[in-house]
Amino acid sequence: MPTFSRLVRFLAKDGRTYYGDAILPQGISDLAKSQQARIISGDIFGKHNVTDQVVDIRLLRPPLAPSHVGTVRCLGLNYADHARETGMPEPRFPILFYKPATSLSGPSDPIPVHPMAQEGTGLDYECELVIVIGKRCTDVSESEALGCILGYAVGNDVSHRDWQIKHGGSQWSHSKGFDGWAPYGPGIVSGNVIRDPQKLRLFTKVNGKTLQNGTTANMIFGVKETIALLSRGVTLMPGDLIFTGTPAGVGMGRKPQEWLKNGDVVEVGLDQVGTCKNKVEFSSPKSKI
Amino acid sequence: MPTFSRLVRFLAKDGRTYYGDAILPQGISDLAKSQQARIISGDIFGKHNVTDQVVDIRLLRPPLAPSHVGTVRCLGLNYADHARETGMPEPRFPILFYKPATSLSGPSDPIPVHPMAQEGTGLDYECELVIVIGKRCTDVSESEALGCILGYAVGNDVSHRDWQIKHGGSQWSHSKGFDGWAPYGPGIVSGNVIRDPQKLRLFTKVNGKTLQNGTTANMIFGVKETIALLSRGVTLMPGDLIFTGTPAGVGMGRKPQEWLKNGDVVEVGLDQVGTCKNKVEFSSPKSKI
Repeated sequence: MPTFSRLVRFLAKDGRTYYGDAILPQGISDLAKSQQARIISGDIFGKHNVTDQVVDIRLLRPPLAPSHVGTVRCLGLNYADHARETGMPEPRFPILFYKPATSLSGPSDPIPVHPMAQEGTGLDYECELVIVIGKRCTDVSESEALGCILGYAVGNDVSHRDWQIKHGGSQWSHSKGFDGWAPYGPGIVSGNVIRDPQKLRLFTKVNGKTLQNGTTANMIFGVKETIALLSRGVTLMPGDLIFTGTPAGVGMGRKPQEWLKNGDVVEVGLDQVGTCKNKVEFSSPKSKI
Repeated sequence: MPTFSRLVRFLAKDGRTYYGDAILPQGISDLAKSQQARIISGDIFGKHNVTDQVVDIRLLRPPLAPSHVGTVRCLGLNYADHARETGMPEPRFPILFYKPATSLSGPSDPIPVHPMAQEGTGLDYECELVIVIGKRCTDVSESEALGCILGYAVGNDVSHRDWQIKHGGSQWSHSKGFDGWAPYGPGIVSGNVIRDPQKLRLFTKVNGKTLQNGTTANMIFGVKETIALLSRGVTLMPGDLIFTGTPAGVGMGRKPQEWLKNGDVVEVGLDQVGTCKNKVEFSSPKSKI
């Protein structure tokens, strides 16, 4: 079990990036509003120490350093109300897909939309509880599962429905894997704080209007079961992330359908964790080698 | 462009693991048969040096160290003859899916088959040309694509058809993502040696019998086009792998269908690169935390 409660990774006033245990203002639970943190020294997955050194936070970064991120797994149709709105049956085994680590971004980063994803319709949001694995583990039982978790974040599984359903040849990977299409954070809240991950409200607001409003109580495969099933014959590694699916209310499921537009501000939130607020930015292709 | 021709990673007699440039016996092109290598010092993706220090190879490891592996992308139905045998239409855009880095294994490692994958039918092989990305790149043109490649390997995209088609809820990830289900190697042959990746024979033998025998000339999306298309709005990173699909002859496509069994030895091979020879081993679940 980690010794920290609310892991954040942040740019400090000295221009350096640190891991820290966030200090929240009185009565606030949104880590995006943390202004100071106690610096953590050592290995966040192993021996580490929450020091007494308190520093000011200038900007929250993605909660894990790129070198600490493993595989990013995601579940599809993991809320009954969302499965219904897409017209799909409830899955009998977790529907698993992946995002590349390069799709991850921070809690206030823009969501860049490549010209390829500006064509057609279908730019959509999905608020999700994100599990962060803390220990290498294989064939985990449900009773062992929570002990393998570093903590929880909130994430946005940004998706393009035309590419997902019409052009992807049945696989969802390309439609969800663009750079910056998985904002997550604002930090990672440990099991010291979140004792029961199946009692958390989660929501999406677009330009301030609430479009998703669900609870993790409605997950088809809960956190423990997800870890037990995904680890069958598969080793989960420290720094692996699991996006656990989204409740009803996505743009695709609305009548009429509502897609994200250039300039929209999308906010995803999770009880006891906080919010990621990201602006949609249509971009030009930039060849970079 | 790397300075090495045939990158191998190997256990030496001193018990340490090195990167080296393989020395092949006269008239042999299979890197699995290399017995010595010149040690490479430095960063294989950046400044490195092929030294004069020649050492004996005791055992070939997976060609990239786990810390050097990025995202493992795979293409589905990328050979017209294979698309036909599965009864699926030829894709108009690459069908993309992923394997986790934990599925990678070395050229002579066993393929462990978890009890979950021993149930039902459908344990299958897929020989594939594997691209290893050498440079961080985004929105690459076809003319720039070969310059982003570290080299080529051969890989086996081990798959379970029941889990892929019946139980995966449309997504192929779980059926192809078990530990050790992506043997690759035996090394990485650079563009110094393979000038044209679209002229290579590739094959699978099971217990010595040839079951796949194709050529990369029949890829629907060739190496350059694959890199150009997959890098649209997506940053490819050094150490990313791309399994580029398999030709006809998989067990699923045979009449009658032929599945891998416990104890089978599967060999996949690619011209100018060599072979991976892996034994199928049915295993028991082992809870490990």
